[in-house]
Amino acid sequence: MKTPVTVLGLGAMGTALARAFLTAGHPTTVWNRTPGRSPELDTLGAVRAASPTEAVAASPLVVVCLLVDATVGSTLDGLDLSGKAVVNLTNGTPAQARGTGERVAAAGAEYLDGGIMAVPAMIGGPAAFVFYSGSPVAFERHSADLAAVGRPEYVGGDAGLAALHDIALLSAMYGMFGGAQHALALVGSEKIPASRFTEDFLLPWVTAMLGSLPRIAKELDEGPEPGAAGSNLAMQAAAYENLIDTSVAQGIDPGLLVPMGELLRQAVGTGHGDEDLAALVPLLRRSV
Amino acid sequence: MKTPVTVLGLGAMGTALARAFLTAGHPTTVWNRTPGRSPELDTLGAVRAASPTEAVAASPLVVVCLLVDATVGSTLDGLDLSGKAVVNLTNGTPAQARGTGERVAAAGAEYLDGGIMAVPAMIGGPAAFVFYSGSPVAFERHSADLAAVGRPEYVGGDAGLAALHDIALLSAMYGMFGGAQHALALVGSEKIPASRFTEDFLLPWVTAMLGSLPRIAKELDEGPEPGAAGSNLAMQAAAYENLIDTSVAQGIDPGLLVPMGELLRQAVGTGHGDEDLAALVPLLRRSV
Ligand SMILES: NC(=O)c1ccc[n+]([C@@H]2O[C@H](COP(=O)([O-])OP(=O)(O)OC[C@H]3O[C@@H](n4cnc5c(N)ncnc54)[C@H](OP(=O)(O)O)[C@@H]3O)[C@@H](O)[C@H]2O)c1
Ligand SMILES: NC(=O)c1ccc[n+]([C@@H]2O[C@H](COP(=O)([O-])OP(=O)(O)OC[C@H]3O[C@@H](n4cnc5c(N)ncnc54)[C@H](OP(=O)(O)O)[C@@H]3O)[C@@H](O)[C@H]2O)c1
Repeated sequence: MKTPVTVLGLGAMGTALARAFLTAGHPTTVWNRTPGRSPELDTLGAVRAASPTEAVAASPLVVVCLLVDATVGSTLDGLDLSGKAVVNLTNGTPAQARGTGERVAAAGAEYLDGGIMAVPAMIGGPAAFVFYSGSPVAFERHSADLAAVGRPEYVGGDAGLAALHDIALLSAMYGMFGGAQHALALVGSEKIPASRFTEDFLLPWVTAMLGSLPRIAKELDEGPEPGAAGSNLAMQAAAYENLIDTSVAQGIDPGLLVPMGELLRQAVGTGHGDEDLAALVPLLRRSV
Repeated sequence: MKTPVTVLGLGAMGTALARAFLTAGHPTTVWNRTPGRSPELDTLGAVRAASPTEAVAASPLVVVCLLVDATVGSTLDGLDLSGKAVVNLTNGTPAQARGTGERVAAAGAEYLDGGIMAVPAMIGGPAAFVFYSGSPVAFERHSADLAAVGRPEYVGGDAGLAALHDIALLSAMYGMFGGAQHALALVGSEKIPASRFTEDFLLPWVTAMLGSLPRIAKELDEGPEPGAAGSNLAMQAAAYENLIDTSVAQGIDPGLLVPMGELLRQAVGTGHGDEDLAALVPLLRRSV
């Protein structure tokens, strides 16, 4: 028999996780604050627990996916977790992960913190992966079970490291989405259809520009390449003013764009005008 | 014989354009404010003109790639452009494109404004494309010539439309780069190598998330889909605080992330908490 799994939380993500465990053949017990959520799970064989206590008692592997760290605290508070592996997939900071990890360990369980790199529709599919950090014992025992929701990526014994990786990738995602949303607002201001623009231009362009990231990363690891930058920051800072001016002229709030303009100006003002985008990363360090 | 082309400006981009025209067999005359730039063009057969006047006289097709619109104005000012097609690939706003277009037309030329969607290393390669707007006569006459630098995309007779498309895509690019730079700064704060993180996690993740853009665009064109959002904005706004807190805790300036957090809070505060990211785009319209 496959490892019985308990899922605490049946929001959009908890529901997708429970579905993936059920589909993979795990006896799955679920609990949610508001009863009756996601009735489709009953058809798949989910067992509903009436309380967190009952839910936790049902399985050696307890997966938690609630709104925020405070919700995790109030839900797990006072439960007997002895002998369990608790895997917390709720989004949080590294500090929250370490704090929750200590409390869970004090209640007798092995603790893994996780960061889900997928939207619910991707769970159980080939592109989903999940960062884990914390108890190596729990990871070794349950990584094959956890593979049902997405490729497990263990990033270290410090329980905070999964959150660090997760939050780094979410930063990248929100940057991309913010830029794309601004782009769609700009073309929308001239009634250019969003779908056509997205398929024909936005996706190919951002995909092509992603191709610059390995070079930027290499520069960060190994230092700048000799030779002139193909796209120097002085030129970019000059062109950037056109982004702000055009947004204002089209009636689009330039707010999402402003900090990058400040960063480019700061880079040029501190002597990096002939370097390229990799030079911006160290400027984000607050001690610099 | 292929159409003779003049290129004004031999910065990183003008040099790449001249090289592409030469490689495609166009007799190519070049001019740059600082003489002697990019000596490799001489080997490819470029003819150097001593002045903009001499350069413009050499070819029916004049491609301009200078730093900013003001540079274009001061360089073309007073030149006889009669019978020429002037193609301005200098970055600028739609308003600047219209203004330059009027001045160039008054000097006797057909005017195309363009936005280059490529870095210099991509010029002449399969992923490069260039938005054009303005004179349909000039575009029809020279689109085959212009294809030497990248796929030509004509977006309308209003000279400002190429700049609008260009600036929309640059907004998207800077959002993506800003997010990626923040991500690399965050993992750098824990000495995680940038190249490994980029190849293993950052590129696959951002590529997967780009997959959400067609649905967002469709919602903008056709209105929201019925049914609960897979990633609701209330949840996202709650998690977003963890991005800011983690950045501060790791010593990374959260500046690039701040406006998106404000936008998410605004969306939740104005009743969009159960919608998804498409709901943010209309909030960028200033009249809203
Ligand atoms: N959706 C995504 O795309 C995605 C991706 C990666 C990570 N995540 C993370 O996964 C977690 C869940 O996200 P989601 O999309 O499932 O959110 P959601 O659909 O909004 O669901 C929130 C869940 O938290 C529960 N909850 C909220 N406050 C509670 C409280 N005080 N006590 C007990 N339970 C409480 C809700 O229970 P009720 O039903 O009773 O309200 C519900 O089960 C979040 O940390 C999120 O950041 C989500
Ligand atoms: N590089 C890219 O990735 C890229 C991509 C798309 C679009 N663009 C756009 O292409 C244009 C050129 O960019 P670039 O990368 O070639 O920049 P660059 O390498 O910095 O070159 C700037 C060019 O402008 C000239 N210039 C500057 N001020 C001048 C003045 N007052 N009078 C006459 N010439 C002047 C420079 O001449 P000197 O040699 O005499 O200084 C040089 O030829 C910009 O509008 C940029 O936004 C660039």
